[in-house]
Amino acid sequence: MVKVGVCLSGCGVFDGAEIHESVLTLLELAKAGAETVCFAPDVPQMHVVDHMTGEVAAGQTRNVLQESARIARGEVIAASEVNGAEFDALIFPGGFGAAKNLSTFATQGADCSVDPDVARILQEAHAASRPIGLLCIAPALGAAVLSRGGEAVELTIGTDAGTADALTAMGAQHVDRAVDEIHVDLASKVVSTPCYMLAQDIAEAATGVEALVAKVLDLVELAE
Amino acid sequence: MVKVGVCLSGCGVFDGAEIHESVLTLLELAKAGAETVCFAPDVPQMHVVDHMTGEVAAGQTRNVLQESARIARGEVIAASEVNGAEFDALIFPGGFGAAKNLSTFATQGADCSVDPDVARILQEAHAASRPIGLLCIAPALGAAVLSRGGEAVELTIGTDAGTADALTAMGAQHVDRAVDEIHVDLASKVVSTPCYMLAQDIAEAATGVEALVAKVLDLVELAE
Repeated sequence: MVKVGVCLSGCGVFDGAEIHESVLTLLELAKAGAETVCFAPDVPQMHVVDHMTGEVAAGQTRNVLQESARIARGEVIAASEVNGAEFDALIFPGGFGAAKNLSTFATQGADCSVDPDVARILQEAHAASRPIGLLCIAPALGAAVLSRGGEAVELTIGTDAGTADALTAMGAQHVDRAVDEIHVDLASKVVSTPCYMLAQDIAEAATGVEALVAKVLDLVELAE
Repeated sequence: MVKVGVCLSGCGVFDGAEIHESVLTLLELAKAGAETVCFAPDVPQMHVVDHMTGEVAAGQTRNVLQESARIARGEVIAASEVNGAEFDALIFPGGFGAAKNLSTFATQGADCSVDPDVARILQEAHAASRPIGLLCIAPALGAAVLSRGGEAVELTIGTDAGTADALTAMGAQHVDRAVDEIHVDLASKVVSTPCYMLAQDIAEAATGVEALVAKVLDLVELAE
């Protein structure tokens, strides 16, 4: 059975993992018969956002691992316990959590730092030639970890010029793709899709997730 | 365009709306081209549960409407603003939120009370002959509001005898259905399915959600 690690970053688009992208990833993996292991760093969220107003909820703190457990129905482990090479593939859903909790991309752009466990897991998986799927804003993690290391990985991130420029500044190559398309960097085995960077609704987001999960699993089979 | 109200009850299976059931409901509605309006009561949650441990997080409070907004990406309105007859159909995902925040079924069983706005919305929709879909534990709301009012609605709720007995005590008729099946009470226009009362994984839960949403939309078309 193929075993896929899914990295969550909280629970909610504005301060954590994008819930629809995360759930649809889990759905497609389950439908394909893959075993899924959800993990997340055991760290405080950058902040808590009231999802009604979009404003930061002053004085509140939440833990990324505990909130990720909501999406995973309790079945989630700490990133510190994970070795990226133990999986056949890795997938990172988007949401601001990828840019606020897994990295500082939301506030520091191309100068961002990445959570040490998340960076290590990405490097381990990549060094072992595992396919890596990056949704929505999560390609920023690929750029920060792999491209700043010297590899010009081809990545989607939507159509916002400033965001694309930040990827380029980290040494990645930005590629434009529509919401129902994926981009496959075959040399790096990195698959990405814009999802809610472009999607107008959940059905549109689903088209990208479905295509990405199918391609990531294809790349696993090719390797076997 | 068909307009469907989706009642959320927080964000997380142990103290709110079951996230997978909620997201899959939104996905199926969007794929079918329906307009979706998410709503939830603007009340405190019964409690907050740490989804890593399953234990109550002492001293924490969260608001049902604000947490529901995480699933709805901010697009959710207060139940107090909703009239059940304004929708072509209503769907209630499950999760303990339905039994802890929308009602007191989790602690009081057949003697439960139901949030006044939720009860009113269910009655308005039912009086206007709108189809109502109830997932997982949410059939308890149908029993509490409709069957205690005198209508022996046929409802699924999984295979736990005590839970089924509580439905019967409220005047409903419990029907056994498998995880990939729905039950349609045509007289009452109530459709139900066990979902995570029985599902072993998200792919199993999805089969029930897909069948339920399709049938609820069928009943809307029949009425037109």
